[in-house]
Amino acid sequence: MADRIITIGRQCGSGGHTIGRLLAQRLGLAFYDKEIVELTAAKTKFSPEFIQSHGEYFHSGALGHIIGYGTRFDGSYKTGSSLTDQLHQAQSEVILEVAAQGPCVIVGRCADNVLEGKYPTMNVFIYSDMSYKVERSVQEHGLDPDKAASILTRRDKARAHHYRFYTERKWGDMRNYDICLDSGRLGLERCVDLLADAYRRW
Amino acid sequence: MADRIITIGRQCGSGGHTIGRLLAQRLGLAFYDKEIVELTAAKTKFSPEFIQSHGEYFHSGALGHIIGYGTRFDGSYKTGSSLTDQLHQAQSEVILEVAAQGPCVIVGRCADNVLEGKYPTMNVFIYSDMSYKVERSVQEHGLDPDKAASILTRRDKARAHHYRFYTERKWGDMRNYDICLDSGRLGLERCVDLLADAYRRW
Repeated sequence: MADRIITIGRQCGSGGHTIGRLLAQRLGLAFYDKEIVELTAAKTKFSPEFIQSHGEYFHSGALGHIIGYGTRFDGSYKTGSSLTDQLHQAQSEVILEVAAQGPCVIVGRCADNVLEGKYPTMNVFIYSDMSYKVERSVQEHGLDPDKAASILTRRDKARAHHYRFYTERKWGDMRNYDICLDSGRLGLERCVDLLADAYRRW
Repeated sequence: MADRIITIGRQCGSGGHTIGRLLAQRLGLAFYDKEIVELTAAKTKFSPEFIQSHGEYFHSGALGHIIGYGTRFDGSYKTGSSLTDQLHQAQSEVILEVAAQGPCVIVGRCADNVLEGKYPTMNVFIYSDMSYKVERSVQEHGLDPDKAASILTRRDKARAHHYRFYTERKWGDMRNYDICLDSGRLGLERCVDLLADAYRRW
């Protein structure tokens, strides 16, 4: 079997977390999603709530823009100074630490970019159309059916902004990933089957 | 096995044609790529050369803009009048005719869009980074190594323009496809394996 780390990017509501969890079970690999939050909290001064809300999302609200010294607004932003930069740095170190322990599945958090050139990876992106994502979010997470689409869209925008900022790549652009699957069309179980096949064959 | 038609969109040089051919062999399905050109020529007044050069590409040169009556330039282009519109119409009819004969593999030519809502499909997109595409194009098609990248880029732009014009969708946007694979990272054989698995499981 391949000695690779599987990274999973995903649209909100697409089932990427569930696919990752089932895939890790199937392949007998460690699984990291929210676990990254806990590990980052354990080694920093950041609270789990702050890590959860800022570790993958850029917010348009005032609280999201926690800017420190050295920040420029002319497009040549100098990272390394704001709280969110420090969080990204710490979170990336956690990702490298878990990767050093062997093959695993890591969901989100720019892991594809953090590991690039350091570990062999299989980079996956999971997406689907809005109707599927709304249906899942209402059923699985109890979102208000009338608000679900706008909530999911807003969260994905914040993820895209965060990913672009720290990787200088476009989130959800297939060129960043090895395999992209439409979970709504294929179904979650079939996605797990295909990704397990792909991993074993690699 | 699934009773689906496989459509394959692909970047120039990514090996999408080869993957499609091998996949059709593996699954025992009919295969259509250049064959669509011949079938379209047989039922229209268009030459194979014209179909080949305009059936998937919009050109920036004067010859590419063969505009007929009813064309508007205000963004509300009215199709059905130009020679390229007539070609697209005839080619789409050929695609529907071959689809009516049963499951098959069709490469390019907006087949995903032509068949949507009419036949069950498995829509695939094949892409890879430029260095892999240049290497393949030089080896397989004898392109000049110094010019290959610009030739491939130009052809993909013409494909993207054509696809956008006739489908009102963005070519190479993963949301149009069920499965997107990086052939350079995975290798052509592994792409064929994965797609055959996916088809059989569907």
